[in-house]
Amino acid sequence: MDSPTFNQLKTLLGEVYDLNGALSVLGWDQQTYMPPGGSEERGAAMATISRIMHLKITSDELQKCLMDCESQLSGLDPDSDEARLVKVTRREVNRRIRIPADWVAEFAEATSIGQEKWEEAKGTSNFLRFQPYLERIMELRREYASFFQPYDHIYDPMLDEFEPGLKTADVQQIFSVLRDKQVQLIHELKSRPQVESAFLRQFFPENSQWDFGVDVITNMGFDWNRGRQDNSAHPFTTTFGMGDVRITTRVIPDNLGSALFSTIHEGGHALYEQGFSPSLLRTPLATGASMAVHESQSRMWENLVGRSKSFWSFYYPKLQQLFPTQLGNVSMEMFYKGINRVEPSLIRTESDEATYNLHIMLRLEIEIALLERNVDVRDLPDLWRTRMQEYLGVSPHDDAHGVLQDIHWAGGLIGYFPTYALGNVISAQFWEKIKKDIPDLDEQIAHGQFRNLLEWLRGKIHVHGAKFETQELVQKVTGSKIDPGPYLTYLNTKFREVYS
Amino acid sequence: MDSPTFNQLKTLLGEVYDLNGALSVLGWDQQTYMPPGGSEERGAAMATISRIMHLKITSDELQKCLMDCESQLSGLDPDSDEARLVKVTRREVNRRIRIPADWVAEFAEATSIGQEKWEEAKGTSNFLRFQPYLERIMELRREYASFFQPYDHIYDPMLDEFEPGLKTADVQQIFSVLRDKQVQLIHELKSRPQVESAFLRQFFPENSQWDFGVDVITNMGFDWNRGRQDNSAHPFTTTFGMGDVRITTRVIPDNLGSALFSTIHEGGHALYEQGFSPSLLRTPLATGASMAVHESQSRMWENLVGRSKSFWSFYYPKLQQLFPTQLGNVSMEMFYKGINRVEPSLIRTESDEATYNLHIMLRLEIEIALLERNVDVRDLPDLWRTRMQEYLGVSPHDDAHGVLQDIHWAGGLIGYFPTYALGNVISAQFWEKIKKDIPDLDEQIAHGQFRNLLEWLRGKIHVHGAKFETQELVQKVTGSKIDPGPYLTYLNTKFREVYS
Repeated sequence: MDSPTFNQLKTLLGEVYDLNGALSVLGWDQQTYMPPGGSEERGAAMATISRIMHLKITSDELQKCLMDCESQLSGLDPDSDEARLVKVTRREVNRRIRIPADWVAEFAEATSIGQEKWEEAKGTSNFLRFQPYLERIMELRREYASFFQPYDHIYDPMLDEFEPGLKTADVQQIFSVLRDKQVQLIHELKSRPQVESAFLRQFFPENSQWDFGVDVITNMGFDWNRGRQDNSAHPFTTTFGMGDVRITTRVIPDNLGSALFSTIHEGGHALYEQGFSPSLLRTPLATGASMAVHESQSRMWENLVGRSKSFWSFYYPKLQQLFPTQLGNVSMEMFYKGINRVEPSLIRTESDEATYNLHIMLRLEIEIALLERNVDVRDLPDLWRTRMQEYLGVSPHDDAHGVLQDIHWAGGLIGYFPTYALGNVISAQFWEKIKKDIPDLDEQIAHGQFRNLLEWLRGKIHVHGAKFETQELVQKVTGSKIDPGPYLTYLNTKFREVYS
Repeated sequence: MDSPTFNQLKTLLGEVYDLNGALSVLGWDQQTYMPPGGSEERGAAMATISRIMHLKITSDELQKCLMDCESQLSGLDPDSDEARLVKVTRREVNRRIRIPADWVAEFAEATSIGQEKWEEAKGTSNFLRFQPYLERIMELRREYASFFQPYDHIYDPMLDEFEPGLKTADVQQIFSVLRDKQVQLIHELKSRPQVESAFLRQFFPENSQWDFGVDVITNMGFDWNRGRQDNSAHPFTTTFGMGDVRITTRVIPDNLGSALFSTIHEGGHALYEQGFSPSLLRTPLATGASMAVHESQSRMWENLVGRSKSFWSFYYPKLQQLFPTQLGNVSMEMFYKGINRVEPSLIRTESDEATYNLHIMLRLEIEIALLERNVDVRDLPDLWRTRMQEYLGVSPHDDAHGVLQDIHWAGGLIGYFPTYALGNVISAQFWEKIKKDIPDLDEQIAHGQFRNLLEWLRGKIHVHGAKFETQELVQKVTGSKIDPGPYLTYLNTKFREVYS
């Protein structure tokens, strides 16, 4: 390819990358350190930068440059960084040119304020304080869908933002397989004696919890020279650049699992973001392939690694040493079963692997109903309670433990939730392959050694960044497309053993 | 004024304000929480945003809109927000159109990296690690000066960035008066018995120091709903918007004065930034009149309030209670004298009021010599030692306590230092007026009451934001222009009493 043209494209995309990184800094600060008074001006600043970024991506200058590059693609390896950069840029430009810049700015402002209001509403468990802001966000999201008409499904444009190439119908098909089999498994487990887990609900000092999580992700390979961890109401990972990937957690003194597994989860995201090829620096390829692939990494570390017997055969003695009075009388076997207790519960992020996907399905259903105007925002608290009862047989006593539990809608992330369940599915597909490639992986993990695992993930997945779409990448790595089979096998095997 | 045109101007300036706020967030994070690996991409992001901001200020759209507004100024109160907004915007546009956007981006990147390198260099007291970066910054600053040719003095364009309207010759004249009188005072004090201050160098736990500082600035009126305090290598104040004004401090366990007075100093800056009229929101008037006026606020709170007898007659019993073993045997009188001990010393930020301005004069002289190429960057460590010996009779044993002590040059702030000394001068002029308007101010302070003082500052100074230039504002408030007289009177009276 003619290198001046391509270099110009990289320069233009570098500026977009910079603006995107700045937006991430503003968002991170908003959720970690910003005083309440900063809310309004922060919303304005994020709106302005979002608008400028959008105008840059859709500028005549960038489009012309992109077309010049496209005309020079022939002869280039279609999997090369160059060819993929052009392809991914085209996909994003085509999506963006349908969206007016004013919408982008309004959406940025609405979601910035939305997250503030959500936090207030959640803190007081008062949905009414959040309702008008969520109404505005849903209105904007319906408007967003309208930019992409005609579509097969109103949810398709939402999904496409997080899962390029995937359709709502695909997700629904995968989910229907999962739903039947998972409900069946849960039903089966219910008939067996419940495992003990009350010991996780003792008092565990915050500092010790924090330090233990830090030890674990350090050992996983988190690079503190290129990242940090802070507190926030809702744990998240954010990337300012390949040299600065940040995670957050929240430590709950009487819940040992909460911070620990969220730290491992976000650590999994962060390892992905810290692992892109340096050749992708300051390009749109320096990001995850999709949110489902991202979740495959975070959920893999959290569950397939972090809730495994091998993991705890290494870490449990250390945890007992840290909390001798709380865990001294709890055996490793009891602990392992306790952190894998299956029980329909209220909070998605703290739910077990067997019920987790049902939380997602409920959210998908509600998101579609909201977009199709089959339900009003004001009716959400009731709807939430009804559906939780149907799906999981439990119902929240307040909205903080119900419809207000997740920050996603406040941040405008409609279409994001399915990626968690898809991530679970994909993580098990990857895991099958990893176990073939590293036969003694369990033993390595049982010695606290994650290097080979991380190297495998780096080489097969991380290094590519966003070069490949989800189905393409899953096919490339595992030889088949997204397939719920391995995840269901994993669930059935694991939980029949836990509940044996 | 035709309101659509004026509203358009405000919209355009609002975007500039947003970008400037975002830059402040990036800069704050860089100095407080950023991991080392984030340095390079942060520099790129700050460069991109600086360039975009510059292009917005100098855009045809803004210039046309500004001209339209200017043509409608007649009949408008020249002191109105509208008229002043147009005037201040014109000043900034005229300055900016001389500067190429590439220079702006390069300067942002060079100073972003410069600050990182300065921190490393200071940490290891190794000037060589900073030298090439400072050379680059000085080169860019000389280039900056060249955009403003012809000028009376190469330093004029530097000064003008922080002190619009003031000339190098004005500063030099004020400084020559100060120098003679201050050297004379120092000489006189030297002949008297030195006061005791070793008790300030005991071990004071960091948390307690932090908490005491927080108590003081809370009482001063710092609004925590619209601000916060964090740690950084070099204390500073930064503003993301009128609702989010942040200060930083650094706590040194064996130096009680350091964090305390820096917190009060930055608190003084922050009170100014939190006090602008809400009508100035998201406009370029929502900032300080100049850095000298800003320093008049910070230095007033730090010294005229924070090192006064009345202040400590209220706070000293509390401080003694907090540090009973360290201060139990130190009388209030001893303490007051101790924090006002005059002694030529190495570190500007910790120097006493009598010698402080000499530190500034040395820096001004060096900055001019660098710009005029009368000295090379590589010769700075030696030059620093020589000049410190001449000016203050002391010389640093390493560069961390010498030429590397301040972050300013690393951040490209050439022309900034004089504003500290001017701030001292102006603070005393304001103080004379305040004491006339609030005759029992000392008594109020001795009761820990700062409300009337803050209200006076808010009404006379803060509320105006950047509507008036320094000389204009000083004249408006005190009836005369910048005049070293009151400051010299203050110094002589205070220190002859301390050393009586």
